[in-house]
Amino acid sequence: MQTLSKICGELGLKFDGEDREISGLNTLQDAGASEISFLENSKYASQLAATQAAAVFITAEFAPMLPADVTALVTDAPYLTLAKASALFAPERLEHTGKASEIGEGTIVEEGAFIARGAVIGSNCHIMPGVFIGNNVTIGENTVLYPNVTVYRDCVIGSDCIVHSGAVIGSDGFGFATTKQGEHVKIHQNGNVVIGDDVEIGANTTIDRAAFASTVVKKGARIDNLVQIGHNCVIGEYSVLVSQVGLAGSSTLGRNVVMGGQSATAGHLSIAPFTTIAARGGVTKNVEKAGVYGGFPLMEHKLWLKLQGRLARLLKR
Amino acid sequence: MQTLSKICGELGLKFDGEDREISGLNTLQDAGASEISFLENSKYASQLAATQAAAVFITAEFAPMLPADVTALVTDAPYLTLAKASALFAPERLEHTGKASEIGEGTIVEEGAFIARGAVIGSNCHIMPGVFIGNNVTIGENTVLYPNVTVYRDCVIGSDCIVHSGAVIGSDGFGFATTKQGEHVKIHQNGNVVIGDDVEIGANTTIDRAAFASTVVKKGARIDNLVQIGHNCVIGEYSVLVSQVGLAGSSTLGRNVVMGGQSATAGHLSIAPFTTIAARGGVTKNVEKAGVYGGFPLMEHKLWLKLQGRLARLLKR
Amino acid sequence: MQTLSKICGELGLKFDGEDREISGLNTLQDAGASEISFLENSKYASQLAATQAAAVFITAEFAPMLPADVTALVTDAPYLTLAKASALFAPERLEHTGKASEIGEGTIVEEGAFIARGAVIGSNCHIMPGVFIGNNVTIGENTVLYPNVTVYRDCVIGSDCIVHSGAVIGSDGFGFATTKQGEHVKIHQNGNVVIGDDVEIGANTTIDRAAFASTVVKKGARIDNLVQIGHNCVIGEYSVLVSQVGLAGSSTLGRNVVMGGQSATAGHLSIAPFTTIAARGGVTKNVEKAGVYGGFPLMEHKLWLKLQGRLARLLKR
Repeated sequence: MQTLSKICGELGLKFDGEDREISGLNTLQDAGASEISFLENSKYASQLAATQAAAVFITAEFAPMLPADVTALVTDAPYLTLAKASALFAPERLEHTGKASEIGEGTIVEEGAFIARGAVIGSNCHIMPGVFIGNNVTIGENTVLYPNVTVYRDCVIGSDCIVHSGAVIGSDGFGFATTKQGEHVKIHQNGNVVIGDDVEIGANTTIDRAAFASTVVKKGARIDNLVQIGHNCVIGEYSVLVSQVGLAGSSTLGRNVVMGGQSATAGHLSIAPFTTIAARGGVTKNVEKAGVYGGFPLMEHKLWLKLQGRLARLLKR
Repeated sequence: MQTLSKICGELGLKFDGEDREISGLNTLQDAGASEISFLENSKYASQLAATQAAAVFITAEFAPMLPADVTALVTDAPYLTLAKASALFAPERLEHTGKASEIGEGTIVEEGAFIARGAVIGSNCHIMPGVFIGNNVTIGENTVLYPNVTVYRDCVIGSDCIVHSGAVIGSDGFGFATTKQGEHVKIHQNGNVVIGDDVEIGANTTIDRAAFASTVVKKGARIDNLVQIGHNCVIGEYSVLVSQVGLAGSSTLGRNVVMGGQSATAGHLSIAPFTTIAARGGVTKNVEKAGVYGGFPLMEHKLWLKLQGRLARLLKR
Repeated sequence: MQTLSKICGELGLKFDGEDREISGLNTLQDAGASEISFLENSKYASQLAATQAAAVFITAEFAPMLPADVTALVTDAPYLTLAKASALFAPERLEHTGKASEIGEGTIVEEGAFIARGAVIGSNCHIMPGVFIGNNVTIGENTVLYPNVTVYRDCVIGSDCIVHSGAVIGSDGFGFATTKQGEHVKIHQNGNVVIGDDVEIGANTTIDRAAFASTVVKKGARIDNLVQIGHNCVIGEYSVLVSQVGLAGSSTLGRNVVMGGQSATAGHLSIAPFTTIAARGGVTKNVEKAGVYGGFPLMEHKLWLKLQGRLARLLKR
């Protein structure tokens, strides 16, 4: 736990209000009373009025829009300041002290697996050789981790899950702020990944941890090999992601969404439940109505088929 | 080995015929006299007459089409029943009893590699740190497995092969039946992967094991990094798969097929020998004549180039 | 070190000139006085006159174009001869003799990591479980290798780098010569990978070692998950490669190039500094002027948007 005054001291920000304890960073929408948020992009300015954050990294121009009880931490470059602040909340990569790990009855941990302190693994799991399970990871019952799976610290995996070899759960989301000189400053990804029950994850698939809060894969989802799930995505119950799908950060999929092979989303989009995206489809806008879509940019799949007919005709001219 | 009566008992299916031993599950076309098959999709009904299966999971409607000596196991949902049956034939993930592994003369097994019981590795191989080799895997001579390669149980790798780091051979194919409520039931992938001699497999490439029988990569193939090969694919001799290629299940490539970077196939398609698919090509139908193809949907590459010319003209209007 | 006469003996080539020591193979442009080069493709014949190579694998037709002090090693199939010669320069995969590894002060090597002889790791690094570091790898200070990363021998990683789980650095580039019978002969990739300071590399990303010389990732680059970087690429300072990007061999990116998700390059192309390639863009030619590009084949992004408008109109007819 850090204090607001100490954080401002480290970041070189002016602060003379009432001090308080700060537990972390979050978005304007999700920040609680012990968290700091930020405003970089003016399109989110409308969220200032309702934010519950303790304080906000913000430019002088927008500071007056904050509620009276929210501290403005004025900076020319809020996102860059956020990046610097994120380092203050990053936990140790691997702690060798603290509570011992707990392994449930009937769980087999094979030779050559590594289970860090604080991990809690339920009963009848199978942890195969070369698996790494980080600090404080929680795993339910009957879950199988095939050889050479990596689960970064603080992630949660449900019961009855199967994770295939080489899958990586909880690697850092792709987040950084860029200076005027074009250099990148890491935004430490202090969130985690939460995977529900009965989820299967394919070989060499990667699921990034959230910048704040959690990347979520809900109950019953089926994820094929070599799929990329960016930070802060939410994958609905029983969704199906075929091989080589790429989901950009903060994509939200409703339940039973099917994404065909090599299809992808741009970031910060949502897809309605029971929607199918055909193979190679590129989701470039929210999908608000269930249906079958394809193409890039995205359109109704029957329109895409019609377009191919038109193009064939164009070729004959 | 299981008996038909016991299997039906476990699945809640009516069975009062003559009992027999069942060794596994297979397709209508490939099932032998000790195997059970299934008919879900009516387009395969024409295969019923010639099936050699002992019994078939089938709806009442199609049951009369079966030969007299094939037992109809009537169910409303044959594919779902198949999924449930597949669990009965799934072997243990990792057995610590049984025949010791055999390591050929001159083969080096580095510290930190894991070789399960029953594996047979030929002479002059090099098994590097972090490699996992499952039960009963067979490897020829002079084959190299770089660090952190995973080979699931029962797979076969030939002689003079090179498998680069992070590659996963024999992970489960992406197979499940979906209930009316939209929940997915795993089809256990009880087949394996068979890789011929002189094959090179790139880093973090994934080759899924077959649902039944084998996924096959034939002699002399060259597979780049991050390639996905779905279950039951057959890759012809000396074929070349460039990075990020994705082959859907049951794709069959003839010899010396070249697939450019990020190209892909839809499932259950075949590609004629000596065919080239250009980078990004999406194979949406069988390719029966050797040539150079590209685009998505697939067309002759020269047509694709012509189409780009037409589109450039369209832009100028 | 080998001699020219010995190499020719092994390859069955005629050689009666003055003998000399040969350290390796290289391109016509880059070969030094102790290296052998080759000419397969006549479009590079113009480089013969200026080559500094000791000798060149070359057909009889082009041999007269070589400078007087460069030895012509005449062969019908120069590229195939190069492939065979490359095997003569391939180092051992993993040596257990030679200089012990050096680990800097404050560096933590976790249990289950493997560090080969001759590796030199600077201070305050963190090498996590399941990591493999090959012979003579050099790593700077404060660099983190997450679990199950593989770094092949002779590669170089700078200071302040982060490499996420499952990433593979230094796997063999995808290189082979093909015989008239359609069989492939490996070109041993005797170069390495050199990564500058402050580079972050995502989970399950693969960076291939060079055929000759180095694949280079310069200072400050940010590389996301499941990215493929082919042999002999050069990635400029502060470049950003989003998930599932695929760079074919010998792609050269200037500084601050941004490549969107699933975008790709054909080989032997260069991209001007400060260029952005939109998601899915396919770079099919050199990009000489900074700007925003997209589509496949590549065009200015605003043209691509215009094209989508035209196609929408085409659909309405």
